[in-house]
Amino acid sequence: MKREIADLLDEKRRVVEEALKSCFKEKKSPEKLYKAMAYSVLSGGKRIRPILTLLSFERCGGRDISQILPLACGIEFLHTFALIQDDLPSMDNDDLRRGKPTLHKATDEATAILASDALFSSAFELFSKMEIAESERVRVIQEITQAIGPDGVVGGQVIDLDQEKDFNPKTLRHLHYKKTARLIAASIKCGAILAKAPQRTIKILERGGVYMGMLFQITDDILDVVSNEKTLGKRTQKDMVQNRLTYPGIYGLDRTKVWAMGYAKRAKGYFALLGEPFEVFQDITDYILTRSF
Amino acid sequence: MKREIADLLDEKRRVVEEALKSCFKEKKSPEKLYKAMAYSVLSGGKRIRPILTLLSFERCGGRDISQILPLACGIEFLHTFALIQDDLPSMDNDDLRRGKPTLHKATDEATAILASDALFSSAFELFSKMEIAESERVRVIQEITQAIGPDGVVGGQVIDLDQEKDFNPKTLRHLHYKKTARLIAASIKCGAILAKAPQRTIKILERGGVYMGMLFQITDDILDVVSNEKTLGKRTQKDMVQNRLTYPGIYGLDRTKVWAMGYAKRAKGYFALLGEPFEVFQDITDYILTRSF
Repeated sequence: MKREIADLLDEKRRVVEEALKSCFKEKKSPEKLYKAMAYSVLSGGKRIRPILTLLSFERCGGRDISQILPLACGIEFLHTFALIQDDLPSMDNDDLRRGKPTLHKATDEATAILASDALFSSAFELFSKMEIAESERVRVIQEITQAIGPDGVVGGQVIDLDQEKDFNPKTLRHLHYKKTARLIAASIKCGAILAKAPQRTIKILERGGVYMGMLFQITDDILDVVSNEKTLGKRTQKDMVQNRLTYPGIYGLDRTKVWAMGYAKRAKGYFALLGEPFEVFQDITDYILTRSF
Repeated sequence: MKREIADLLDEKRRVVEEALKSCFKEKKSPEKLYKAMAYSVLSGGKRIRPILTLLSFERCGGRDISQILPLACGIEFLHTFALIQDDLPSMDNDDLRRGKPTLHKATDEATAILASDALFSSAFELFSKMEIAESERVRVIQEITQAIGPDGVVGGQVIDLDQEKDFNPKTLRHLHYKKTARLIAASIKCGAILAKAPQRTIKILERGGVYMGMLFQITDDILDVVSNEKTLGKRTQKDMVQNRLTYPGIYGLDRTKVWAMGYAKRAKGYFALLGEPFEVFQDITDYILTRSF
């Protein structure tokens, strides 16, 4: 199973890569800005969010892939926006991302900030121009603003950087929910919205997506502790060094793995409610779980 | 006339202030983020963009002001986003804005960047939830992404900061068009869209808005040269010091004023095509022109 799911993810990843590349084919002005945007967007990555969007659309009966690609690309733009900003000197101050210099190292800080803004804006431009009913475009934009704004990624980053934060499990879960889980859940949910899935299916996929997102962040934290810099392509153990709020920091590695298994179980429980076509989401959940074990 | 238009702008400004304040009435989490957003949004300012939105809606026959206020507030959020970022150490590195410490001085750099992001995201959330037809929400979002993204404010800032830029009049106009004129034109245009104005009216208002926006930026540049720090509440003559691309820098003060009059004339020429209810835009154009003379 693990082999099959790896192949499926790889196949979808290639579709996403092609679509992302095509966003930067045309030469546009200011060239410096587009180059910076492309540098960060096309520097690899797992593409897990847009892949989930594609799969959700597909499994909910969506057929015309051209309908879903702008959504998938826009979501990856927003993820890239968050990564560029995370790496900034005033935030995590990282020099490496995916084995390459971070954008502010490859260009300069102002260009990195402006490229992240441009990706943000371009994502919403993509969403507003999707070739689907206007009511669905509006719904997707509402979902995504909630997943990326003060109640999502941006709000999560504020909690993450707060020096006076409570190091308690409730804050930790709140942080992971905002910073990671909401956008992953929205990636799955919006794919289903575009495929005009029934309300119940959308709701269940969203709930499963939240637990998958929580799991994803935990396994990221575990990998940060156990990996070495070379294999991950970014500075590791920084969470420990910077006294960041993480599962391994609060619970230790063994109990963190128990938490991970718990989240995986809950995610799979939701996906199982939807029957056979949605088994792929159970498989992906297992795949995420085992990447850190 | 100047007295009357000043009173009208003041009356509308108070409406905008009230609406902006109500956006921050509810206590929300993370508190630190909302406080930072409110600090910058509620620190005064001319509110010229949202005022233009209100007036355009009104003069195009829009009646229910509650329909237009989310658009007006969202546009001011986006303007504030741009101001926060302009002031950052990696950009203009300003300590004062509207006579108060800039946001990164009052908080820290990361919080300032994240508050600007949150304003960006909240603006699109407001647009997506406006109580108007979904088709018009989508249209407004398309207009605004173009005015704020790589072809608008963000792209203009890249040109503005580019150390290797050509100091030629064409680049200068391109810069002002992107950085200032497009968002001002969109503010007027979107008010008209929400009032369901005829296509011709929308087009003419947009064109007049572009020239009004060009005029606005020129008068800002003139004020920067002739004002002193105390009256303007921000560091002045920085454009000269930093060798920025401006009209006074390229043409000198006298010829810049001729340019300003030329833009005012063109703006008023468009507004005049729409007859009496739209005379207010001619008056505002004159008001902007004379503020710098």
